[in-house]
Formats: sequence, C-alpha cells, structure tokens
Amino acid sequence: MLRVRGEMIRGGTSKCWIFDHHDVVATGVDADTLLLAAFNAADPRQIDGVGGASSTTSKAAIVQLSDVAGVDVSYAFAQVGIGDERVEWTSNCGNCATAVALYAVHRGLVPITSDTTTVRMLNVNTGARLTGTIPTPGRTAPDEGTAVVPGTDALGVPVLLGFQDPAGSTTGRALPTGRPLDTLTGPDGPVEASLVDAGAPAALFDAKAFGLDGSESLAAFAAVVPALTVLRRKAALAMGLVREGAPVSHAVPKVGVVSGPVTYRTTHGHLVTQDRYDVAVRMVSMHAPHPAIGLTSAVALATAAATPGTLAHRVTRRTADGTLRLGTPAGVITARAVPAPDGASPTVLLHRAARRIARAELLVPVPEGRPV
Amino acid sequence: MLRVRGEMIRGGTSKCWIFDHHDVVATGVDADTLLLAAFNAADPRQIDGVGGASSTTSKAAIVQLSDVAGVDVSYAFAQVGIGDERVEWTSNCGNCATAVALYAVHRGLVPITSDTTTVRMLNVNTGARLTGTIPTPGRTAPDEGTAVVPGTDALGVPVLLGFQDPAGSTTGRALPTGRPLDTLTGPDGPVEASLVDAGAPAALFDAKAFGLDGSESLAAFAAVVPALTVLRRKAALAMGLVREGAPVSHAVPKVGVVSGPVTYRTTHGHLVTQDRYDVAVRMVSMHAPHPAIGLTSAVALATAAATPGTLAHRVTRRTADGTLRLGTPAGVITARAVPAPDGASPTVLLHRAARRIARAELLVPVPEGRPV
Repeated sequence: MLRVRGEMIRGGTSKCWIFDHHDVVATGVDADTLLLAAFNAADPRQIDGVGGASSTTSKAAIVQLSDVAGVDVSYAFAQVGIGDERVEWTSNCGNCATAVALYAVHRGLVPITSDTTTVRMLNVNTGARLTGTIPTPGRTAPDEGTAVVPGTDALGVPVLLGFQDPAGSTTGRALPTGRPLDTLTGPDGPVEASLVDAGAPAALFDAKAFGLDGSESLAAFAAVVPALTVLRRKAALAMGLVREGAPVSHAVPKVGVVSGPVTYRTTHGHLVTQDRYDVAVRMVSMHAPHPAIGLTSAVALATAAATPGTLAHRVTRRTADGTLRLGTPAGVITARAVPAPDGASPTVLLHRAARRIARAELLVPVPEGRPV
Repeated sequence: MLRVRGEMIRGGTSKCWIFDHHDVVATGVDADTLLLAAFNAADPRQIDGVGGASSTTSKAAIVQLSDVAGVDVSYAFAQVGIGDERVEWTSNCGNCATAVALYAVHRGLVPITSDTTTVRMLNVNTGARLTGTIPTPGRTAPDEGTAVVPGTDALGVPVLLGFQDPAGSTTGRALPTGRPLDTLTGPDGPVEASLVDAGAPAALFDAKAFGLDGSESLAAFAAVVPALTVLRRKAALAMGLVREGAPVSHAVPKVGVVSGPVTYRTTHGHLVTQDRYDVAVRMVSMHAPHPAIGLTSAVALATAAATPGTLAHRVTRRTADGTLRLGTPAGVITARAVPAPDGASPTVLLHRAARRIARAELLVPVPEGRPV
C-alpha cells in the first residue's frame, strides 16, 4: 500500500486532486499506475478511491517547479477514467489550472512578495502557458474568498486566470483561413462563420442564421445542434484541422453561436438582463449543448470579439475597459483580452474561483516497489 | 474556514467519512452544520465538498469512546443530503459500521492484544449493537487485505461484522405474528410468507409462488416487484408495523423472495453454480430490485433461515458449520447465525471488507465561532 500526499481543490466547477511531482516520483510507480489505483478508475462508481465518478470530479494535476524561463511551475493534467483503466494526458483544463495556482501559492512554490501573487504556469500536455493571480493580503496564502463562478453557488478564492499568447496554438494562426469571416455550407445552405484558433480552434456562427436570438435555453438550443455538427466538420476542413475523408472528430473545433446581448433566464431560472453582459453565446459539447462554456472556448470567443471583421466583433457590445462579459446558459462569465508585448497575441483573462477542500495522505492500493 | 480531521474509508460498497467526536466538538459548530458544509450538500454535484454525490458516497459517521458496559465505541451515522441541505440521523448503515471498526483499530480506540481485534460498537441512531473483528497480526492495525464483497472488485481488510441480538429490534419479537409461516393475500390470491424482525423487519416469500426459481436477473425479478409492493403493505399490517389506513411506507418491511440454490449468472456475468451457495435471494429496494441485499436484510434472512418452520429454513441448504451463503444478483454474501448467551437472539456474522482511502484535514467553509 503506497502513501502519497495530495490536495483536493475545487477549481471553478471541477474538483481536482493536486499532487507534487516529487511525491509522485517517490512512490516508485508511474503516474498512470498511481492515479488509476488512487481513483479506483476500474470501477464506474470509483467506490474504492478518491475519484468522484463524474468527468468533472475525476481529474488530477501533477505539479513541479519549472526551470523554463518565465515559468514558475509546470503541471501535467490527467483526466482519470471512470470504469475505464486509462488516464488521458492529451488536453489542458482551465479549471484545474486555477486549482494549481492556488496550490502553488499555498505550497510556497512561488514567493509571496506583495498583496497579489501571480503564478506563471506551463501546461505540459499542450504547451499552453497560463497565469493565475491570487490576492495575498498580508503576504499570506488565502483559504477563503467571495468569488463565484457560474455553475455553483460555492464561494472561493478569486483567481484571475490568464491564457498567455493563446492565438494559433493549434494551427499557428489566430485566423486559420486568413479571413475574419468565411462562408460554410450547412444542411440549410450557406452560412457565415468566423473561424478562430485561440485557446482552442473554434467555429462561431451568428445565432440569427439559425433563427435564434441568443436567449435560448439549453433545450431550445439543442434543436440546432445537428446542423452545427454538420458545420463543425466543414469548419474542421476549412481550418486545415482534418483532411477530406479523415475520421470525424466530435471535439474539434469547438462550435457555437453568438449574438448581441438580450435578456434571458439561466438554467437555474435567474434573470439576466441585457445590460449585464456583452455577448450571448451557446456552445456545443460533443453532441449536446454545453451547460456553460469551456474556458478554452471562452478564450476563442474573447479573441474573436477583439478581432475586427469577425462575427463576434460585430455583435459584441464594446466596453470602455475591454472587459467582455459572456452570457452563457449557466450565467455570466467575465473575460478580458489585453495586449501583450513582443508580438504575442492578446492575453485572455478570466475571473475564476478556487477553494482547497482537503489536504490528505492517500493510501493507494499498489504493491510497493513496482517499477516505474 | 474551519478545519477538521477525517478519514475517507470504504466499508463494503459504501464510501464513508469518519470523524472523531472530539474533533467535531472542537470546531464549535453543530454536526449538521459541519457535515452540510464539508460535503457541499446544497449542490446536487457536491462540487465544493468531499461528498461523492451519490447515496453510497455521501455518508459520514462520528465516533467516540463509550462508557456503556460492553461497548468500546459508539457512532452516529449520517446520511448527508445531495442537493438537499439535510442530514438524516434515523438509520444505521452496516457498511459504515465496517469502516468505523477499521477506524477504531487504527486510532487506538480499542487496544490490540492479539492477532485479531474485536471492536464492540453501539449505533446511537438505532440502539443496534455490532461487533467488527479485524485481523491484527503482529499486533498492528492493517491497511490492506484480500477480502472482497459483491458489488466491487476492490480488495480490503477483512472485517467480520456481527449484529448482536438482532431479533425483535423493531417489534420486540423475532416472529412478530408469533408464527414462522403466515398467509397473506396478494394481487393473485393467497401466498405463504415468513415475517421476521431481526436487523430490520422483513417479509420473505417463496420464489416459486411467483413463478420464479431464484436464478433471475434484476430485470426478470423486476416483473414481480409490483406484486411484492402490494404484499409489503399486507405484511406491514400483519406485523403490527402500521395501522389500517396509515400512510404506506416503501421501506418497511424489507421484502423479497427466497429459493433453494440454483446455478445463475450475476449482474456482471459471472457464473455462480448451485453448489457455491445455500439460499437464493432477490430483495426489493423501494420500488426496484435491490442490486445485492442490504446488510440488515441479510441479518433478517440469516435469522429466518435458522428458525425452523420458516420458508427460508425450508429452502436453505443446511451446512455443517452453520455458515449461510446468500446468492444475490451481485454475487454471494456469506453470513452465519451463532448462538448467543443470556437469552439473546443469535448473533449474525457477515464477512465484509474495508479499506482506508485517505487521511485528511478538511477545510470546511463555515464561519469560525458559530455557536453549537
């Protein structure tokens, strides 16, 4: 029976177990073996492990100090299987990045030298660089705060999450086709699209082209998901993400509709008046409406909204300070695209929250001494 | 932000958080407030807490040394709400009792004086007395073992769980009607029943009376649940558990069918030949087939099987040492009814398993200093 330290931290609407790389190495087993056993990934209910048996509660990150210039800590994000003895290491998770930032401040991986502390992070899965800025009043790491994010009523420490130079992370260009506006042919004929690559590749359409106005509930938006699924394929081809005849991906690019702000009700029934946000967005997650918006999609939308000529730029209400409030089915998420030096694409900042739930020693049912 | 120590322990097929009573008192808030916040009970996904967002993973027990004669530790079992800010304190949980026993041995609440250690427990919710016997070779508390229970493939420390003097716990009599065999009128006419009260009140019927042979899958057994639901009401009246005209309970008594052993396949497809167990059982949980059998129902069945004249006694294969292997849809559970001194009803022993998953300090979002 191995033992390893870990912290259960909520980042936004995910629950992540965060481990120190040195602690993982010290166990003498590889990370896959350790996480599969610690989470009881083999069991669909994860009854013999620390996993929560849902995609948002079966996540881990392994963190270490980095010697890369401009990076404080690197982290590997793990999506741990549920009834499936596999760990996915192919993606990043913005929610877990938020948790990593809070962990790094608490564990002293970055020095606290003023009333706010910024953790510069490298996601080793994707190469993405992020920053997490946390209030550290009195030069102490906080355990509580009053920040909330759409999707949970829980309070947490505010974390300003920054995606650094997010443009072109997949294709090398913020506008993979070279144009802010393209025309794709969907099941009901040609439709305008803005194809952007920032945070993740995304294809954004005008809600009006589908007879929507952006106030739609998840159920109402579901009606256009089949058409958007067809258009996702066309967008993938146009952006050079796949070749004609290649297998269809249901994850790439992200796809959704945008519109100017209109008064709507969230999934939980809260009224959001049109003056409280700047752009309405309804995204697809695989084959269904996304309950809110993925953070990488939010980055794509914020980047598009800051790019003249795109659909998002056309419908978005301009604000004085560059803040962009995204009206999602779960509520309003605030993003901001700010200029970056040295020719980098604008940094996209998102206001998130994190909370340490538990500090633990995990007992992991792996025979000791199993080779790495 | 309060802090409190706790251990996440799997007991059988449940995940329980175990707390020391003194630690709970030291927080300065009442147990309901503490557990609701620690588990994030308000959220159906329990995303900001240690709860697992399912009935089997939203459980806690608060343990303390007892000065009651013949009792080592008492524990209060808590079923913590999921999207519901309530804690239920009305029932016992055999799986959590298993976890409590392992916790007590590890925390030194009972001395280890030989190669096995027995923890004598009082469940303060119901007054039930239980024992948990754990191997302690070399006089050390174990973290691992090779015991398994139906419903999970995970290995754990073997815990022999004993229900002490279980008969008549609700009605005062092992056979509430005074007879080992009664006749109740169901939707298809009169049917034989054995009405027993041990662990919990239970009404057991002959599978053959419903055209079954005890080898049925959950889906096949579901067909007779409506008839058994009608008979549950008749049994409740006959046992004096409710009065004519009183509201229908869907939990009391436990109800199910028994038969002699026949070869069958478990829900997960494993073949169980008829020589590998002694009595087939299919129980109802509320309005649906129980995936295995609740431990208190197992106690009722074991008591009935040891009582001449009951249906269970009639169909059960007699074994030389009094061991009773129950063939449930999830697999075989082994029970044993052994004579008790001083006129007490036979102790029912069940072979279970437990494993410590994590030792933790929980950070609980409750303002400090809130009065008890």
